[in-house]
Amino acid sequence: MESDGMLQVSIRDDEVDIVIGALQHDLTQFMEEWRPVFSRFHIIIVKDPDLKEELKIPSGFNYEVYTQSEMQRVMGYSAVNFSGYSCRYFGYLVSTKKYIVSVDDDCLPARDDKGNLVDAVAQHITNLANPATPFFFNTLYDPFREGADFVRGYPFSLRTGVSCALSCGLWLNLGDYDAPTQAIKQRQRNTRYVDAVLTVPAKAMMPMSGINIAFNRELVGPALLPSFRLANEGKLRWETVEDIWSGMCAKVVCDHLRLGMKTGLPYVWRKERGSAIDSLKKEWEGVKLMEEVIPFFQTVRVSPQAVTVEDCVVEIAAAVKQQLGQKDAVFTRAADAMIEWIKLWKTIKAQRT
Amino acid sequence: MESDGMLQVSIRDDEVDIVIGALQHDLTQFMEEWRPVFSRFHIIIVKDPDLKEELKIPSGFNYEVYTQSEMQRVMGYSAVNFSGYSCRYFGYLVSTKKYIVSVDDDCLPARDDKGNLVDAVAQHITNLANPATPFFFNTLYDPFREGADFVRGYPFSLRTGVSCALSCGLWLNLGDYDAPTQAIKQRQRNTRYVDAVLTVPAKAMMPMSGINIAFNRELVGPALLPSFRLANEGKLRWETVEDIWSGMCAKVVCDHLRLGMKTGLPYVWRKERGSAIDSLKKEWEGVKLMEEVIPFFQTVRVSPQAVTVEDCVVEIAAAVKQQLGQKDAVFTRAADAMIEWIKLWKTIKAQRT
Repeated sequence: MESDGMLQVSIRDDEVDIVIGALQHDLTQFMEEWRPVFSRFHIIIVKDPDLKEELKIPSGFNYEVYTQSEMQRVMGYSAVNFSGYSCRYFGYLVSTKKYIVSVDDDCLPARDDKGNLVDAVAQHITNLANPATPFFFNTLYDPFREGADFVRGYPFSLRTGVSCALSCGLWLNLGDYDAPTQAIKQRQRNTRYVDAVLTVPAKAMMPMSGINIAFNRELVGPALLPSFRLANEGKLRWETVEDIWSGMCAKVVCDHLRLGMKTGLPYVWRKERGSAIDSLKKEWEGVKLMEEVIPFFQTVRVSPQAVTVEDCVVEIAAAVKQQLGQKDAVFTRAADAMIEWIKLWKTIKAQRT
Repeated sequence: MESDGMLQVSIRDDEVDIVIGALQHDLTQFMEEWRPVFSRFHIIIVKDPDLKEELKIPSGFNYEVYTQSEMQRVMGYSAVNFSGYSCRYFGYLVSTKKYIVSVDDDCLPARDDKGNLVDAVAQHITNLANPATPFFFNTLYDPFREGADFVRGYPFSLRTGVSCALSCGLWLNLGDYDAPTQAIKQRQRNTRYVDAVLTVPAKAMMPMSGINIAFNRELVGPALLPSFRLANEGKLRWETVEDIWSGMCAKVVCDHLRLGMKTGLPYVWRKERGSAIDSLKKEWEGVKLMEEVIPFFQTVRVSPQAVTVEDCVVEIAAAVKQQLGQKDAVFTRAADAMIEWIKLWKTIKAQRT
């Protein structure tokens, strides 16, 4: 579709923050490989508070680093726990930009099916700059991509679409599987490059992976939150579900506020690290909890009185406490953290105005 | 996923009918090009009752032809109109097989992104033989494909999936656009081969194109029905919406009976014919009606008492009459045709037992 989409926006480089959660101290290879993609943008690096070693970051980038002491200075006292994979949420909080792109520090740029280096940031920005179409499915995937359009039968009244709030990218090499799946299929690697972007339909829930995402911070920022922390959460993705929880929270908010979420391109290349077998003992906790989490998010409804993302999150937190609180202490802690997060978000916002 | 999917089935060649609606009389090129794919299967060719010339069909296939006189012999008197693109529904009716694969007679086998000839029948059969997952979205597309699986966060209780009732394939070269879109973008060709199959989420409606489909006749057969006929319907796809209507009817039935619909692979190569500009006068009728059709199917609900596909279709027909009947005569005619079709389906079924 040409630039006739009314909701299509153009995004300047200075409207974007790249947020990197540093779970390893030596970011040299990571930053060097991403240099052609990242160097145009302002970068926020948040160091996992549990990480002792000093960060190694190559020069030639426009970046800011937040360590535990900076975090405390900004927040004062807060009950929100930013350790491990949750550290990057601090970057989402302190960013002053409209758009965030965030990639795990064990991912490198991927190559597409023609062997070209993928500019993941450019592709995420394209996804966010073009409308999403959550109210009817387009069989030729993203109708706003070059060479595509809405198929026969697609109502014209829905072709304007809605603003895209979140873009969820994928992974080549190591797919984002849970520890049991990874342990059973240790040699499985994702080699299929699927050249597609699609809007996840309204009311359909999805497991958003935080490995490779971008979002419109103004539209949906407060819904990307660190709150669902497993008791034995480790420093490997398959030991965490914080992003899955946060993604479903964001999806419920998007559905309520009539915003879109896309999934598909861009891909990143996930390096291998850790042993899925070692993680199996911990991971079952997350796997079991999903059996409660998905039905909850599939049925939770936000009231018409909730008109901001903050309102929505507060309502969802109350529902979590009420419906899931009795089942496992992790849910009560998650609900409390959601409330704390919203307070923190509002405080930071108020300091700026 | 290996063969651990409980709902995975194996499909024999003699359980499949290829159904071809002949809108052109000379099927030589069509059949020759499909020979490597079709020759293993029994083929039902239904001649458009409006077509005067005798069919030309090359030898070496196992086929049956139904012309207007055979159709009348089988049906006796019936108000169902099988002219034009609707002729192939007659093949769905008289088939005695469990699975139907149907491709428009202006489509040829496509080549994939590696230049290999696509076996569209084999791919449709794979789609139908493997479970569908409509109740939660899998970001790596079909989890049952070689090399793929369920991603982190996907609840184990939903990984068994449900039976796949329908597989909706796509098109290279000429995409399936409506006449206005085709007229505006006369030179646009679909060249993007997206190597993916996905389940359309429950409750999400989609515009099913009838150009390249397969379905499980036992599970969902009666919902594939000829009923939504435009007053000036012609012999070009973009002048029709009968398949869009039928597809939404099938989707509502699938959602109600907890069955799945997939979209994506396989592709077919659509040849060019007809002028979109000439069709514009007629097509606006279909385009305008979609504005009523989609909200209807998005909200129509079937009662728990409807336990067969036939029950569901009868209930949907009643709702069409009640909710849309006043808006346009085409809806009343469609509802009547749905009822007639179910009668016909039941009669044919009864004759066999």
